[in-house]
Amino acid sequence: MDRARACVVGASGVTGGELLRLLVGHGGVDISCITSREHRGEYAFRVHPNLRGRLSVAFAEPSLDSVLKRDPDVVFLALPHGESVKWVPRLVESGLTVIDLSADFRLKDPSAYAEWYGWSGGHPYPDLLGRAVYGLPELHRGELRGAKLIAVPGCMATASILALAPPTGARLVDVGRLVIDVKISSSGAGSQASRLDMHPFRTYVVRPYEVVHHRHIAEIEQELGLVSGERVRAAFTPHAVDLVRGILATGHAWLSREVSEPDVWAAYRSMYGGERFIRLVKDRAGYQRYPDVKYVIGSNLADIGFEIDDRMGRLVVFSAIDNLMKGAAGQAVQDMNIALGFDEAEALGSAPLYPV
Amino acid sequence: MDRARACVVGASGVTGGELLRLLVGHGGVDISCITSREHRGEYAFRVHPNLRGRLSVAFAEPSLDSVLKRDPDVVFLALPHGESVKWVPRLVESGLTVIDLSADFRLKDPSAYAEWYGWSGGHPYPDLLGRAVYGLPELHRGELRGAKLIAVPGCMATASILALAPPTGARLVDVGRLVIDVKISSSGAGSQASRLDMHPFRTYVVRPYEVVHHRHIAEIEQELGLVSGERVRAAFTPHAVDLVRGILATGHAWLSREVSEPDVWAAYRSMYGGERFIRLVKDRAGYQRYPDVKYVIGSNLADIGFEIDDRMGRLVVFSAIDNLMKGAAGQAVQDMNIALGFDEAEALGSAPLYPV
Amino acid sequence: MDRARACVVGASGVTGGELLRLLVGHGGVDISCITSREHRGEYAFRVHPNLRGRLSVAFAEPSLDSVLKRDPDVVFLALPHGESVKWVPRLVESGLTVIDLSADFRLKDPSAYAEWYGWSGGHPYPDLLGRAVYGLPELHRGELRGAKLIAVPGCMATASILALAPPTGARLVDVGRLVIDVKISSSGAGSQASRLDMHPFRTYVVRPYEVVHHRHIAEIEQELGLVSGERVRAAFTPHAVDLVRGILATGHAWLSREVSEPDVWAAYRSMYGGERFIRLVKDRAGYQRYPDVKYVIGSNLADIGFEIDDRMGRLVVFSAIDNLMKGAAGQAVQDMNIALGFDEAEALGSAPLYPV
Amino acid sequence: MDRARACVVGASGVTGGELLRLLVGHGGVDISCITSREHRGEYAFRVHPNLRGRLSVAFAEPSLDSVLKRDPDVVFLALPHGESVKWVPRLVESGLTVIDLSADFRLKDPSAYAEWYGWSGGHPYPDLLGRAVYGLPELHRGELRGAKLIAVPGCMATASILALAPPTGARLVDVGRLVIDVKISSSGAGSQASRLDMHPFRTYVVRPYEVVHHRHIAEIEQELGLVSGERVRAAFTPHAVDLVRGILATGHAWLSREVSEPDVWAAYRSMYGGERFIRLVKDRAGYQRYPDVKYVIGSNLADIGFEIDDRMGRLVVFSAIDNLMKGAAGQAVQDMNIALGFDEAEALGSAPLYPV
Repeated sequence: MDRARACVVGASGVTGGELLRLLVGHGGVDISCITSREHRGEYAFRVHPNLRGRLSVAFAEPSLDSVLKRDPDVVFLALPHGESVKWVPRLVESGLTVIDLSADFRLKDPSAYAEWYGWSGGHPYPDLLGRAVYGLPELHRGELRGAKLIAVPGCMATASILALAPPTGARLVDVGRLVIDVKISSSGAGSQASRLDMHPFRTYVVRPYEVVHHRHIAEIEQELGLVSGERVRAAFTPHAVDLVRGILATGHAWLSREVSEPDVWAAYRSMYGGERFIRLVKDRAGYQRYPDVKYVIGSNLADIGFEIDDRMGRLVVFSAIDNLMKGAAGQAVQDMNIALGFDEAEALGSAPLYPV
Repeated sequence: MDRARACVVGASGVTGGELLRLLVGHGGVDISCITSREHRGEYAFRVHPNLRGRLSVAFAEPSLDSVLKRDPDVVFLALPHGESVKWVPRLVESGLTVIDLSADFRLKDPSAYAEWYGWSGGHPYPDLLGRAVYGLPELHRGELRGAKLIAVPGCMATASILALAPPTGARLVDVGRLVIDVKISSSGAGSQASRLDMHPFRTYVVRPYEVVHHRHIAEIEQELGLVSGERVRAAFTPHAVDLVRGILATGHAWLSREVSEPDVWAAYRSMYGGERFIRLVKDRAGYQRYPDVKYVIGSNLADIGFEIDDRMGRLVVFSAIDNLMKGAAGQAVQDMNIALGFDEAEALGSAPLYPV
Repeated sequence: MDRARACVVGASGVTGGELLRLLVGHGGVDISCITSREHRGEYAFRVHPNLRGRLSVAFAEPSLDSVLKRDPDVVFLALPHGESVKWVPRLVESGLTVIDLSADFRLKDPSAYAEWYGWSGGHPYPDLLGRAVYGLPELHRGELRGAKLIAVPGCMATASILALAPPTGARLVDVGRLVIDVKISSSGAGSQASRLDMHPFRTYVVRPYEVVHHRHIAEIEQELGLVSGERVRAAFTPHAVDLVRGILATGHAWLSREVSEPDVWAAYRSMYGGERFIRLVKDRAGYQRYPDVKYVIGSNLADIGFEIDDRMGRLVVFSAIDNLMKGAAGQAVQDMNIALGFDEAEALGSAPLYPV
Repeated sequence: MDRARACVVGASGVTGGELLRLLVGHGGVDISCITSREHRGEYAFRVHPNLRGRLSVAFAEPSLDSVLKRDPDVVFLALPHGESVKWVPRLVESGLTVIDLSADFRLKDPSAYAEWYGWSGGHPYPDLLGRAVYGLPELHRGELRGAKLIAVPGCMATASILALAPPTGARLVDVGRLVIDVKISSSGAGSQASRLDMHPFRTYVVRPYEVVHHRHIAEIEQELGLVSGERVRAAFTPHAVDLVRGILATGHAWLSREVSEPDVWAAYRSMYGGERFIRLVKDRAGYQRYPDVKYVIGSNLADIGFEIDDRMGRLVVFSAIDNLMKGAAGQAVQDMNIALGFDEAEALGSAPLYPV
């Protein structure tokens, strides 16, 4: 495709704003419509002041009809879980490409929506679920080409899967007892105000939450299961930390056999050798030895590293991403680039902003 | 003891400053001398400006003779590892109480100093090591009464041990495969400047370091081994986060048998029931469900909580402390209070400062 | 008074929480009742988790009758502007001491409420206004003794007045063209959630607001006018910065005549010589040369400093306070201590927490 | 020029790193050599980890000969004040373009270097000084075209001059009594470690410094003097705040006559109407009313706004920049683009990263 017309539904939230920031810099995309219930009629730059001077479009009321009337080639849904599912069937039916940033089409098993999202009766559109592609390019690039329905992975799921796929796939670790300990910033929480999200109460925290049953577990076990061909079980505990952007996922995995450092390197290199948005970070010199959110902010990169703990028979792996980029909007644009045939890195080429 | 004369050796560092802050508010202590090589001759309030108007003493050159000449009842050593060991023998010999905040007397096994601290030949004073009390009051209060040599626990060790001692002691978990994932602030790094500790480079981080062989492992395995009567092995990975104070230790432990929530509560309550500085935090209502560094800053409290992960057969435990308080200076003063017979909470009664 | 029974109305907000933190540490006060509309029935520690283990009282529905029924000696009103005025008349009538943290009784001129607060017709209780004492002890200590209605100053007004009263009072500067440039933290904004107060949007700001007509101007001009005996005019511009606590007020004043440094020192010393909560900070050595919010956090101190700009004929003055302490709850407790005859520093003796 | 070969001298510092980040994204520049005394021999990405995967060059020892041997078209000097002056004569003599980020060639009056920088005898190369162009494109674009020696303005000077040039040039304000109150981040302090720059001591500050005699005053008065044609005097006080990037300059100016809002708008629009890196920000709706550092991070933008204070006869003006971009490296690249004939916005097109 030479040029694409894009709509962003739910464009006044944080993820919506990041999508707009990327799309205004995309050489092949015209922003065709943007919607927001809360801010309809307002100029986008008044909600996302970084775009002042860049974008002079106003938010429209979100409605299927008004979006379809704009005849977009691609629609990004930056809606809460449970909302996207109301939009997707008609959008897909109309033949355009749908890139859904919610969780509504991420899980392959329709009944998993009953267990993890509390949808009675499971997913209402199992057939659509079957057609949805899980939008992690490093694992599903082939399926993404020409895909019409893409489920952008969850932010913590992205970090966790990228860190653990190589050793899991190479059967280096016990996939039944993975431990994933995540540190996450505030911007993923959305823009709906609640007291605990306010500045005085959300700064200076290391705050565990949803400590044994976070919904991203379902995605992680699904994708690592596909990679390894085995049933994967992951203990997963996220912690809110005092950052606006960034996720660091730490995976603690028990080695299933004796492995050397070159074995582990081989697993990572064989899976990510040609990847443009993965950096393997494990260095013996310089200021950075392992992944750190500090060095990926503003970029679509995932920094991945590891260390072998001989004493414990443990492999510890790290993954650092910017949750709004590789964890949401950046990955969504990467998915679009692949689906529509643009250069995969178009609009995503910024080096990390550092220091920030 | 009615009143005690105290000296603080190494008083210009961050921990030394916190000791001074606490001691000026202690009803039974007179600050008898303070030392600093770098700042000798300067007034303490010029290095610790919070003490302006509170403390008009100047730093003396650190020397054993000059300290002993002040005839103190208690000496706090806030020195780097490997320095305290030069001071302790003569101080102990002179009959006063020594409270050492370094690691030099924490490990019971002299040969462990070869393994973990690189001291060739192990610890040079194995007899003194035998007399040293590991200054965690919740585990060693009895030994602390009247003790003459106290090794104040490491900050991350304090958080980790307090979180895991009850389930380890009660044999609820597999003590051979503990995983401890720590999030730690910047103030523990001391006041020696290096580029990575500077503001532009130390903000906005989630930075793993010493990811498989941190020295605090030795203390943790030692103390949990004492509690459980078994050989304990802990996989331990710390992460620097963007805070000045605070540590959150997350313990991931595999349940060794089926346990109910009341079983775990019982383990914690039986060990910490009467403790004045432990709060068990596991709530179903209100703004705080689990420990969070946010709610302990400025206090000597350790907030401890847990959750059972039935799906994985995991117990996840959390411990939040202020690293300069319960993790260093606060605990040192608590140790002194016990050793000298003061009220255990003297000078340590502040509620956490919140929000900060 | 030996012991006082205190009620805190509006106790679930940030200022209310700080009052509770101070009152639980007050040797002469029993917390008799606390109210909150939003959180009635909840335990206070579930809203202010720092008080877990310290306070086991629940919030009552706020009503005059229920408060009066508790027969308090003193009532703190931590209510929004315009709410206190509904409570004060009956409380005062009942003979107890009212300490109002809102702006409702700060201005002496009833018509000023029309101009600055938009109250049509001005203040409804001009007589009560006349009896209210402006609760800045450094200027009104005598009136505070035994006072029955105290209007606690605004946080930025406190910082500004304390910085400028001495040179204004000593006629060193042109009082018709003061410039006050304030940097203020987030906790003063209260606990009502709005998007701009959320963590992702309130971090990393230097955000000017109400840049020419902030309400605190009225208090500042009133009080400096009293001190100087002249009509004072202050240009006042606040800036939100990325802090939870703290205010720094910078006053730029044109010298009205040639002055030497000793002249300025003399003005400050003569006004604040015996003050326990004022520190004059202007040093030529050490880490602190001028006031900085860093060094007052958690304390009731106001650090005040200055410099003469000979080149420009300017006096620049600085004032640093913790807005929740000297700027609100701490000053309220100081006022209560004076009014009821307690030691003025009771419950307010903490040295600043540093570093934090 | 089609392509240019660039050297960066002093490339391991923060500003040097930002230059490298921009130059790797510049379509017309090849990085020909980079130097660092401290890090010579090391790969740049080990000092600036954001550039891992982008730049595989190592730092060379800084020496004039080795730089000239690389035959660069342009040399950026990111050196401390007093160092650049040793490099510039020979570089200029060799005919290449020199872009100096230090203060060594900013002031037109040779004797000003005695007064403001303590150089005995004033500037040693008054002739070179005469040929240097002050690299603020909004004021000196014409001179920058083809310029061979460019002095990049100081970061706070850039913010201050841009804010005040229009009302000063239009004679709306009293240019003899300007007040400039600046709030500045930590990254401008460089990468040399000192205790006060360390994370525990540099967070949570609002810290005035060099409060009456900061060196940037000389640049500000020089440039505003050129614009207004009068002798300009500015009272200038910077405050360190807890940010890594960003400057907000607040100018308080006394109106010299009655002015209306359209008058002031006219002054700003006539000077900045066509400028690509200036946004005039003064809005009555939306989340942003005035400039705020929050909305310029990572961009080369200067947001400028104002308000009239009728009550005081004051004009208050605001200017927000990213100090490493428009305040240093970004402006240096903008200068190079103009000097060498590239598109002025090449490599500088990023919208601000938000939220961050």
